[in-house]
Amino acid sequence: MRGLAAGILVWVAFGWSAGAHEAARNPRLMDFPATASGGLILPVDLHTHSVFSDGSVWPDIRVQEAKRDGLTAMAVTEHIEYQPHAADIPHPDRNRSFKLASDVAKSDVLIIAGAEITRDMPPGHINAVFITDANALKVDNVEVAIRTANAQGGFLFWNHPYWHRQSPDGIARLNPLQERLIAARLLHGVEVANGEDYSESALRIALDNNLAILGTSDIHGLIDWDFDVANGGHRAVTLVLAPTRTPAAIRDTLRAGRTVAWFKQTLIGRPAHVEEVVRASLSLEAGDVVEKSRVLAIKLKNASPVRYTLRLKAPQAFYNMGDVVVVPPYGEVALQVTGGVTPQTLQLDFEVLNSITAPKQTLSLTLKPKAG
Amino acid sequence: MRGLAAGILVWVAFGWSAGAHEAARNPRLMDFPATASGGLILPVDLHTHSVFSDGSVWPDIRVQEAKRDGLTAMAVTEHIEYQPHAADIPHPDRNRSFKLASDVAKSDVLIIAGAEITRDMPPGHINAVFITDANALKVDNVEVAIRTANAQGGFLFWNHPYWHRQSPDGIARLNPLQERLIAARLLHGVEVANGEDYSESALRIALDNNLAILGTSDIHGLIDWDFDVANGGHRAVTLVLAPTRTPAAIRDTLRAGRTVAWFKQTLIGRPAHVEEVVRASLSLEAGDVVEKSRVLAIKLKNASPVRYTLRLKAPQAFYNMGDVVVVPPYGEVALQVTGGVTPQTLQLDFEVLNSITAPKQTLSLTLKPKAG
Amino acid sequence: MRGLAAGILVWVAFGWSAGAHEAARNPRLMDFPATASGGLILPVDLHTHSVFSDGSVWPDIRVQEAKRDGLTAMAVTEHIEYQPHAADIPHPDRNRSFKLASDVAKSDVLIIAGAEITRDMPPGHINAVFITDANALKVDNVEVAIRTANAQGGFLFWNHPYWHRQSPDGIARLNPLQERLIAARLLHGVEVANGEDYSESALRIALDNNLAILGTSDIHGLIDWDFDVANGGHRAVTLVLAPTRTPAAIRDTLRAGRTVAWFKQTLIGRPAHVEEVVRASLSLEAGDVVEKSRVLAIKLKNASPVRYTLRLKAPQAFYNMGDVVVVPPYGEVALQVTGGVTPQTLQLDFEVLNSITAPKQTLSLTLKPKAG
Amino acid sequence: MRGLAAGILVWVAFGWSAGAHEAARNPRLMDFPATASGGLILPVDLHTHSVFSDGSVWPDIRVQEAKRDGLTAMAVTEHIEYQPHAADIPHPDRNRSFKLASDVAKSDVLIIAGAEITRDMPPGHINAVFITDANALKVDNVEVAIRTANAQGGFLFWNHPYWHRQSPDGIARLNPLQERLIAARLLHGVEVANGEDYSESALRIALDNNLAILGTSDIHGLIDWDFDVANGGHRAVTLVLAPTRTPAAIRDTLRAGRTVAWFKQTLIGRPAHVEEVVRASLSLEAGDVVEKSRVLAIKLKNASPVRYTLRLKAPQAFYNMGDVVVVPPYGEVALQVTGGVTPQTLQLDFEVLNSITAPKQTLSLTLKPKAG
Repeated sequence: MRGLAAGILVWVAFGWSAGAHEAARNPRLMDFPATASGGLILPVDLHTHSVFSDGSVWPDIRVQEAKRDGLTAMAVTEHIEYQPHAADIPHPDRNRSFKLASDVAKSDVLIIAGAEITRDMPPGHINAVFITDANALKVDNVEVAIRTANAQGGFLFWNHPYWHRQSPDGIARLNPLQERLIAARLLHGVEVANGEDYSESALRIALDNNLAILGTSDIHGLIDWDFDVANGGHRAVTLVLAPTRTPAAIRDTLRAGRTVAWFKQTLIGRPAHVEEVVRASLSLEAGDVVEKSRVLAIKLKNASPVRYTLRLKAPQAFYNMGDVVVVPPYGEVALQVTGGVTPQTLQLDFEVLNSITAPKQTLSLTLKPKAG
Repeated sequence: MRGLAAGILVWVAFGWSAGAHEAARNPRLMDFPATASGGLILPVDLHTHSVFSDGSVWPDIRVQEAKRDGLTAMAVTEHIEYQPHAADIPHPDRNRSFKLASDVAKSDVLIIAGAEITRDMPPGHINAVFITDANALKVDNVEVAIRTANAQGGFLFWNHPYWHRQSPDGIARLNPLQERLIAARLLHGVEVANGEDYSESALRIALDNNLAILGTSDIHGLIDWDFDVANGGHRAVTLVLAPTRTPAAIRDTLRAGRTVAWFKQTLIGRPAHVEEVVRASLSLEAGDVVEKSRVLAIKLKNASPVRYTLRLKAPQAFYNMGDVVVVPPYGEVALQVTGGVTPQTLQLDFEVLNSITAPKQTLSLTLKPKAG
Repeated sequence: MRGLAAGILVWVAFGWSAGAHEAARNPRLMDFPATASGGLILPVDLHTHSVFSDGSVWPDIRVQEAKRDGLTAMAVTEHIEYQPHAADIPHPDRNRSFKLASDVAKSDVLIIAGAEITRDMPPGHINAVFITDANALKVDNVEVAIRTANAQGGFLFWNHPYWHRQSPDGIARLNPLQERLIAARLLHGVEVANGEDYSESALRIALDNNLAILGTSDIHGLIDWDFDVANGGHRAVTLVLAPTRTPAAIRDTLRAGRTVAWFKQTLIGRPAHVEEVVRASLSLEAGDVVEKSRVLAIKLKNASPVRYTLRLKAPQAFYNMGDVVVVPPYGEVALQVTGGVTPQTLQLDFEVLNSITAPKQTLSLTLKPKAG
Repeated sequence: MRGLAAGILVWVAFGWSAGAHEAARNPRLMDFPATASGGLILPVDLHTHSVFSDGSVWPDIRVQEAKRDGLTAMAVTEHIEYQPHAADIPHPDRNRSFKLASDVAKSDVLIIAGAEITRDMPPGHINAVFITDANALKVDNVEVAIRTANAQGGFLFWNHPYWHRQSPDGIARLNPLQERLIAARLLHGVEVANGEDYSESALRIALDNNLAILGTSDIHGLIDWDFDVANGGHRAVTLVLAPTRTPAAIRDTLRAGRTVAWFKQTLIGRPAHVEEVVRASLSLEAGDVVEKSRVLAIKLKNASPVRYTLRLKAPQAFYNMGDVVVVPPYGEVALQVTGGVTPQTLQLDFEVLNSITAPKQTLSLTLKPKAG
């Protein structure tokens, strides 16, 4: 019945039990602070499916999921060539899903037009987003499809290059076609995290070939189920380090490769980009010296939805903690530092354990209190 | 990507965080104990929608939701006449959704063929379940549709008779057409609970007209969202008091009106039926007399997924509780009784506050320990 | 080690994990709103023990527990005659515990001087609070002790009159001595709730004899363990409906019998007093009429730490709920009302199921929206 | 009131709400599995206070806390020289607290006789446990006290050597007296974790001087408050790797230095000992190869109450996870491994991030599936 009058009852539908959960801040929301230089950290999901290819929901559910997650933008990327529901949804229009999502999203979430060019290896699956007409990509020759998407101004990336259906041992390797596409600047990014999966071989390819580092949900079913959101999970997304919250800025930033993939609480990206996210998230605050001592009380504060796991490096040591510190989302940790450190000399060298800047490598950075 | 290989990865998808939640019993599962006489209490949802009418999910999601909830059976009841997605899903076959759901459900959940005959008042919306061909109901004359569904062996019920779109003040009232259908035994039940809503005027109609009392989800979006499952909510269902777990037994039991609607933890039904569910759920156990006293320790145990709220009636009184006692799902409460009661004389008169046996009426019953 | 420097490290001790729990409002805190006429609802615990009689903690823990619970006041009421720790704590000074608690409480919690006159029946155990010297009560003749406590300006009440050690069947009954004390205005109140226990026979005595109705923790061990605070439990307290937050006002209000016992979420008291608490807690707000209907959206808001369980009475009915509604602490519930009610005509008759105004009786009251 | 009849009501006190929490396993319980060679991992707390020195609870609360935590053993270690409650508890008998704790503990928890020799630097505070008479340690000359404790068969250790009251910069340093005691085998261990605190300089001293590595609660207030047990915290303890569960075995194992401190989820000890705990806790299980691929599904299982945080090392890589994996207490994680690994060739090299084997060092170990 609600299907006939959904808009009217939404307030009631969510309202009746809402009072029980007066959290100061919805921990599900991907609400990132601005960087020190005023840049934005925009969570976007560039890979989603609906019933218009092989997904299991109408586009309106995808939009609602995106709102609940606080995404800035979501791309609609139905398979061009793979249409298992075609018997029931014989749509000739590959833009249809984007149109339906846009209609319901209004200004809450930016909906990005896209498509998944779905081929065997080579070149495998390639997403094109920020395109103008998905139908034009429905051609036999995959290179023509890719050139057309580029001609439309699209941002193109290689999906799950490690996929065991196309790489049985689960390791990503470039093939000549992809190398040619990259050389010609026709392929601009690569997924290092997709849904449940992460690939360090894909990350290696991104780093070696100057490609944007991406995380996507590649959602077919339900976000809440696949990512265990009720127990603190989150979908894989790309954090776009853009100057403004506009489609053009997001696309240009993707092109410039200023991205970090956020996957199962881990930040994956080039060191400078990961550091930008970490520095925007964390701040160090000096407190009082513990009475009759030279032990200094400090606070580590986290303004982001990321759960940080840090490791303190020599020569400093905490008085009330081992070297590993978890800083909860939108939370803080109170610590004490030994060795006679003062607010003036305080600086802590950390390894960010929930970061990956290259295969088996993490970010290290030094935090100091903000100058008063 | 998982869309292409969903079956393979399911174990992994749910497995990776499962270890953290070793609950003895999944509180979401609607797993009811048998009654004392060996009868079954079968949770069924007789009203669901998918993209094949005005729902927002493919039928496979409906089946997965039903499995997660532990439903015995789920009816697929697309609107015959209301097809807002027809531009994209121009299916002429009103059995299609049932077919797709059945294919994925296998033996886990019984999928019941159905349809929603969707008209203005009179007669409003009528669900027909246990039918053999929904296409045959696609006729202009609503009485013909109803007679056809009956001829197919269908169980028919009036949906959300209180619906404010068809009854602006939200109160259910019979009209002459419905009275005629009921008199002719062509309409067999009525929803007293639908989705977020409950109607005591609908319950009055059911009681006065010997109709089956039903609760349904009427789900269009997602069960988890509409019913706040993460915080302990549950979809509205009908508990069918059937002798066996077969389609024929369920249909016959519905016809016989041996049902209880379970809505927001409340059991709604005829007194005898509600009592059957309560007695199967709850048991009273006498413990020891508190040392040097005549105060008796007892336990109230709940073998069902229902959260019971009971009120003790005179002349008994608890020693360690007011008169209102909550017995949690699959849980128990330890109590003490004053007044010199012994295990032999122990009997407690309760009002079941989470029951409705008629408008503004609740079930009362007396519990005694089982004979040793 | 922290024992030697407790004050310094407190911030650290509680701070390190605090960030993870950014609740808008600590649900443990017994923070009641003022009444419409500006009166206060002050939670006080008039019955506590420490190692200075038969409790298991030093008085400083009692003070910390009181602060965590947000109590306005706590009485220190060691047994005068029962000193099981006397071999180790041979203190001759029955005021010692009060002195120690007062020293650490400072202005955060008002510490009330008291004592428990501990005798066999008659008269059983009697608490005297707001006394000036507990040592003066250490006399053989219990009536002398009682008269002395009264002469000191004390408020005296009968503890756990239903106690199975003194009344084997767990039922409270007055004896001639107590009747005489009451007649002489030497006994002013009675515990109807004590620790884990509630007694309707004690409530009957309070009502029949014009005594203050009291709830106390009678804590000997730890509040958190005995009352399962981690899972939402709360200690039994007395809500004092006083005009100001001063010792004199609290004592005078107790004398006047303007109290409500709050026990396991249930409010126990005279109808007018319980109603005062409920009206201060709950407010009704009319929202919009649901589009194209005459169903009215409303909200029930709860500004108190009490979990309310209400039952709607005829003639009204909800559209989206059965008759029983739970309004969570510091929370709200969104509801809809049928029958063409308007914001102007809206009024709801409720039974407050979590109230007891006499044995097996509850409060009923009518809520209307505040005049705009 | 319960103080007079506590034993009788305990079942009721904890029973009434217990039904709501049917966890398969109490996550609070420190229940460690046996090691592969049949050795035991026994959690003991060798440093506790009660009102008999500067603690805030009677010894019975300490025993109840120990039972709740599942400790094998708890030492009672009142300060010999520091008696701030002496005005109220003028006990001349330094064994009194041990006696009272032993009386209530019965066979549930082993109570170890101990004392804290409490001096300025040098030598600071020294705990002696497994002694026979604490009163004999009440002598002016600290070396005499230490020799007496040794003569009684005691195990002696240096408490919080980094304590800012005795080492203002919070860094532990040996002094000549302590060096002499160690050389003479009169001092056998050192606290590296105490209450809220951890010290890598203390760990350095332990390693350099062949001392037992210890973690203790040094509890003065309440375990639940100081260690935030309601939110998953745990007290600091020493895991004793003993062959049997007897006092003699525990003492001898402490003397042999076969210990690991468990502090804020971190295991601190010599590499071989930490590895013993980790190997007893974790097991690796090979599952199926993912269909049509050479990706191998595996499970990491944790049979211990420790929350493990592991980092995978080259050359392996996960398919569905970054390099850092959290294995929850008594839980498991499902993973997939790339690169064509088979059940026969499977082996994973991990760094145990929640371990400290020396200042700024962690344990590395290789896990293989158990031979079928």
